[in-house]
Amino acid sequence: MIRAGVYGASGYIGGELLRLLLGHPDVEIVSAVSTTRARRRVDSVHPNLRGSTDLCFCAPEDIGDCDVIFTAVSPSVAMELVPQIAHRTRVLIDLSGGFRLRDRAEFTRYYGEHNCPELLGEFVTGRPETHRKELTEADRISVPGCMANAATLALHPLAAEGLIRPEVTIDGRVGSSGSGVTADIMNLHAERSGAMRVFKPQRHRHEAEVAQSTGLTVRMSATGVEAVRGVQTLIRVSAADGARLDDRELRRLYRDYYGGEPFVRIVAQKRGLYRLPEPKILIGSNYCDIGFSTDPEDGTAVLVAALDNLVKGGSGNAVQAMNIRFGLPETLGLGFPGLHPV
Amino acid sequence: MIRAGVYGASGYIGGELLRLLLGHPDVEIVSAVSTTRARRRVDSVHPNLRGSTDLCFCAPEDIGDCDVIFTAVSPSVAMELVPQIAHRTRVLIDLSGGFRLRDRAEFTRYYGEHNCPELLGEFVTGRPETHRKELTEADRISVPGCMANAATLALHPLAAEGLIRPEVTIDGRVGSSGSGVTADIMNLHAERSGAMRVFKPQRHRHEAEVAQSTGLTVRMSATGVEAVRGVQTLIRVSAADGARLDDRELRRLYRDYYGGEPFVRIVAQKRGLYRLPEPKILIGSNYCDIGFSTDPEDGTAVLVAALDNLVKGGSGNAVQAMNIRFGLPETLGLGFPGLHPV
Amino acid sequence: MIRAGVYGASGYIGGELLRLLLGHPDVEIVSAVSTTRARRRVDSVHPNLRGSTDLCFCAPEDIGDCDVIFTAVSPSVAMELVPQIAHRTRVLIDLSGGFRLRDRAEFTRYYGEHNCPELLGEFVTGRPETHRKELTEADRISVPGCMANAATLALHPLAAEGLIRPEVTIDGRVGSSGSGVTADIMNLHAERSGAMRVFKPQRHRHEAEVAQSTGLTVRMSATGVEAVRGVQTLIRVSAADGARLDDRELRRLYRDYYGGEPFVRIVAQKRGLYRLPEPKILIGSNYCDIGFSTDPEDGTAVLVAALDNLVKGGSGNAVQAMNIRFGLPETLGLGFPGLHPV
Amino acid sequence: MIRAGVYGASGYIGGELLRLLLGHPDVEIVSAVSTTRARRRVDSVHPNLRGSTDLCFCAPEDIGDCDVIFTAVSPSVAMELVPQIAHRTRVLIDLSGGFRLRDRAEFTRYYGEHNCPELLGEFVTGRPETHRKELTEADRISVPGCMANAATLALHPLAAEGLIRPEVTIDGRVGSSGSGVTADIMNLHAERSGAMRVFKPQRHRHEAEVAQSTGLTVRMSATGVEAVRGVQTLIRVSAADGARLDDRELRRLYRDYYGGEPFVRIVAQKRGLYRLPEPKILIGSNYCDIGFSTDPEDGTAVLVAALDNLVKGGSGNAVQAMNIRFGLPETLGLGFPGLHPV
Repeated sequence: MIRAGVYGASGYIGGELLRLLLGHPDVEIVSAVSTTRARRRVDSVHPNLRGSTDLCFCAPEDIGDCDVIFTAVSPSVAMELVPQIAHRTRVLIDLSGGFRLRDRAEFTRYYGEHNCPELLGEFVTGRPETHRKELTEADRISVPGCMANAATLALHPLAAEGLIRPEVTIDGRVGSSGSGVTADIMNLHAERSGAMRVFKPQRHRHEAEVAQSTGLTVRMSATGVEAVRGVQTLIRVSAADGARLDDRELRRLYRDYYGGEPFVRIVAQKRGLYRLPEPKILIGSNYCDIGFSTDPEDGTAVLVAALDNLVKGGSGNAVQAMNIRFGLPETLGLGFPGLHPV
Repeated sequence: MIRAGVYGASGYIGGELLRLLLGHPDVEIVSAVSTTRARRRVDSVHPNLRGSTDLCFCAPEDIGDCDVIFTAVSPSVAMELVPQIAHRTRVLIDLSGGFRLRDRAEFTRYYGEHNCPELLGEFVTGRPETHRKELTEADRISVPGCMANAATLALHPLAAEGLIRPEVTIDGRVGSSGSGVTADIMNLHAERSGAMRVFKPQRHRHEAEVAQSTGLTVRMSATGVEAVRGVQTLIRVSAADGARLDDRELRRLYRDYYGGEPFVRIVAQKRGLYRLPEPKILIGSNYCDIGFSTDPEDGTAVLVAALDNLVKGGSGNAVQAMNIRFGLPETLGLGFPGLHPV
Repeated sequence: MIRAGVYGASGYIGGELLRLLLGHPDVEIVSAVSTTRARRRVDSVHPNLRGSTDLCFCAPEDIGDCDVIFTAVSPSVAMELVPQIAHRTRVLIDLSGGFRLRDRAEFTRYYGEHNCPELLGEFVTGRPETHRKELTEADRISVPGCMANAATLALHPLAAEGLIRPEVTIDGRVGSSGSGVTADIMNLHAERSGAMRVFKPQRHRHEAEVAQSTGLTVRMSATGVEAVRGVQTLIRVSAADGARLDDRELRRLYRDYYGGEPFVRIVAQKRGLYRLPEPKILIGSNYCDIGFSTDPEDGTAVLVAALDNLVKGGSGNAVQAMNIRFGLPETLGLGFPGLHPV
Repeated sequence: MIRAGVYGASGYIGGELLRLLLGHPDVEIVSAVSTTRARRRVDSVHPNLRGSTDLCFCAPEDIGDCDVIFTAVSPSVAMELVPQIAHRTRVLIDLSGGFRLRDRAEFTRYYGEHNCPELLGEFVTGRPETHRKELTEADRISVPGCMANAATLALHPLAAEGLIRPEVTIDGRVGSSGSGVTADIMNLHAERSGAMRVFKPQRHRHEAEVAQSTGLTVRMSATGVEAVRGVQTLIRVSAADGARLDDRELRRLYRDYYGGEPFVRIVAQKRGLYRLPEPKILIGSNYCDIGFSTDPEDGTAVLVAALDNLVKGGSGNAVQAMNIRFGLPETLGLGFPGLHPV
């Protein structure tokens, strides 16, 4: 049994980590750390886990010895925490934004000054589809941001093959759970309900991640729409000189890259309600769905990628990376396929 | 021009008061009081009023002289405030729960100890359909609670005519705006979205108001459902001995009582999507819709009443009462009919 | 391996049956019957199953031999279908309303004339908590209606112990998936969104089921609220003469009856957001959560029960019954605990 | 009094036309035409109008003589209808897409063959902000599409001044009412609820309108998000050679163009929840809100425009055009400012 600890266990991504780890046959949760809820029952905060566990949250200082620690906290907390707890665990999987960028200047530009920039280079990106080999031996793993993961998975094959021009735009739409469990007026139901809130029209942090992963020049906006879970990115690309972007080519390309991936599905149908990726049927699942539309006349294409921001955009991706790191079947504990209708 | 002041103007009911008063041909807003937002523009909090006003909130001590003051604050604040500001205005219309109950013991039971119980008897209930005559001369008016108003309007004719047994149950459903603008975790979008939250299974405060207004024994539950605005009450009644509750009788009864009312509509159709009252088409309007279903076999009936909790359940009812008090046409400033679809 | 067939497989409950059976280690789906979608891929209708199956729907006449057939169709179709296919399978589990009532007169009253009333007596109610023993040998099983199941599970211990007066009222709230996949104007998003639609103020069909199961006199209303999945019933009861309904007593009683049940949870907390049962955290799970509130003064109590109408109110209950019938561990294939937040 | 007739009066835009015209002091509705609902009461379809009118729908052949006829029908119906009824009215205001494009080839490309292409040139675009002068004398007016209107109002000043490069991309998000009242499975609540549905990733029809109005090369995608009403367009532009796009410049430019416009508001604040345009607070109102964000480093900007698709994206714009055409104050009947919260 892998002994696992979770920091930030009373948050939304932390709660999903607990759900997935409780259902994982080879994992034992040693500690669910919460500074604000220490000693309260886990199911008092995550009521879906009633009957699944009698675990209580513990204070940070009471964490036990672990084989793997997940840190599902804010970037600023993570920068403080990671150096302190690094010795307590062989494998550390960070889900904050604190260690996603390797370049210090880029980090400063999007997040502000880093506490321990010397650690930035130690983390392997926790995206199995692009870093599977490194992950088998990684002791420090940084799980990508939700929108960054969706967009990178859609762009990676095109960028890697040099099929598109370097300038791309990404329009991200997200549900309210992405803001976390903070009781701020911006997250009030009466204000957030039915919103189409362009909270970051330019320079969203995740664009730096996509740029780092793909080598492209990325412009990303982010809009909150009515949903609790879910991320969708709509990406505009243009064919590089000499390249051709048509449906057949993209379908072939994605099949080459992702045909063997357990959690990437290509969804680009001619007809039907769900002919392009849509987050709502992915709720609770670890899938990232990728689709596309091409315009043969002018060489442009629109890519669409969707996932559950708390799962494939966070906890599920982290568990998949853990499975790889510990030599387990990659899909272990991640079998829930999502619901319809929902 | 009537000079009006609004306390609690940065809240949800306060904002609706400003909207209605800005659109009222005979009212000038002298002061929009907010302790937390003093000196900020009104439209920075109520963005729907952009272009309609350049007003800024003022601190409580800066309120000007008014012909009418509306207090849209919490019961505890109202109990402090009302005695302090009573001398500043001829007419005071309170929208808190602080002065709705006349009986001190009842008040204590549902709200706790009252600050100035001697004032409880001075307030006239601000429900035009049942207190129109008193309102023409009232200087202290207490606007009913949202669910209480809907339920009372539905029950009043039956209770007044002695057609039903004294024991009734009310199942109230409310949108999230009823919780006000407080940033509490219970109002977080991710928690409140899609909820069916029985936040008060028994002894909701509004049952005391309905009991006071109708003389009935009332048991009321309250459930938060997915909506920002809107209240619906489903009420179960039984025929009194010798009385008969059938569709024809109820239709006649309601027509007698409410046929001349500008803001009560009887909605009890055999067919159609909207055959019973539904709050969503009432959003922004001052209507209370009332419907019913009867069971000829066993003498029971179900009454359904709906309204916009911020309008007919608050600000609109207050403006209607003001119109009556100042001898204006009762519908002035209240012409918006609601939307479909929405 | 159990060979299973599903009629109505392109419907919402049918789709959930497919999801659960695909994830079930001891079941093989032989045929997914759909009259309207025959020969199309299952995942073209249920997009959440992409990557989980390559199955196509088949026409009714092409169904293969099965150990168990699930019929997830309308009552009128079920009445035609069941006699025709009875010989094709040892075990038939009907999820329509066509065989839930044992009494022909009651059936006629709520549904109209029955085609094959002689079969009504052959079906065992598919509620493991009350009929586990019979289910081990039942060849004809009728799965309860969604609201009926929630209400019956809440009422059963109280009724069985004679603790309550025979007259109870039930206020049911349901999401839109309960209406099925029919494209009718009443189910249009623009009309149904944000609704509080009292579509059946009195005499909802499910009241007959609850009456049959509990021996009580039941009055049930039904209201559609904003949700896709989910049922919640709010039930009012009064203590029988000499009985006492207080929190301690109800907690003890429910523990006695349901302490060993894998899919019933008692949720009645003093504090917290989810202190009473709420459907949204049950989406996709097979739980029925039951809670209560008591009024020591007057001997009344409010019971609250919630479940996912498509799972514990349909497909999940059916799979649980199948597990019992075939001697398998009862929770097999039903492990998904639900999500938070959602 | 202006005598008005409405075709398509049982549809969503038709219903909003009726609401606005009923509240208009200088208009009398002569006929509300509906082929499917003839002789039924208007308020049986539009329940918000209960108490506002006793009007019944009439069949097309029963339309009376009118000063103005509004045709709120599909493009294909409009192409048939307009030539037939042109003689019955001096002023015809078409709200379909049938007469929005002046170029026949463009029309064919986006809509298919036109029935009466010779009429395409006769229609004046019903956008007061850009065609006010022509509208004072126009007898044939074509009201812009909802997303096209929002995007054009945002782009027009920049394009007219030559400040941006000709290639722009538009990401449109729309509520479900844009699909009209058709009971199709794609509009089922259970399928459409919570959707992020990229129903047109490329070549949405409205891009042709924007191109026609601005002279730009437009690429438009359209995504259905969870909302009944509301359109938001997110537009990416780049500075033309020698031009500078910064906040000050854009603010000045929009003030120059729209400072006197009664229904265009510039919303581009540094802080606050509603710092960029958001449709939900515009529901029921005739406002189009326009905002922007600029990136001084690379010369790109993001424009955001929002409106209620049924009002400023349809009925309200039509009434505003009618007011201009008949020499009335332009805001008559259009005073509702929208709601908050909602």
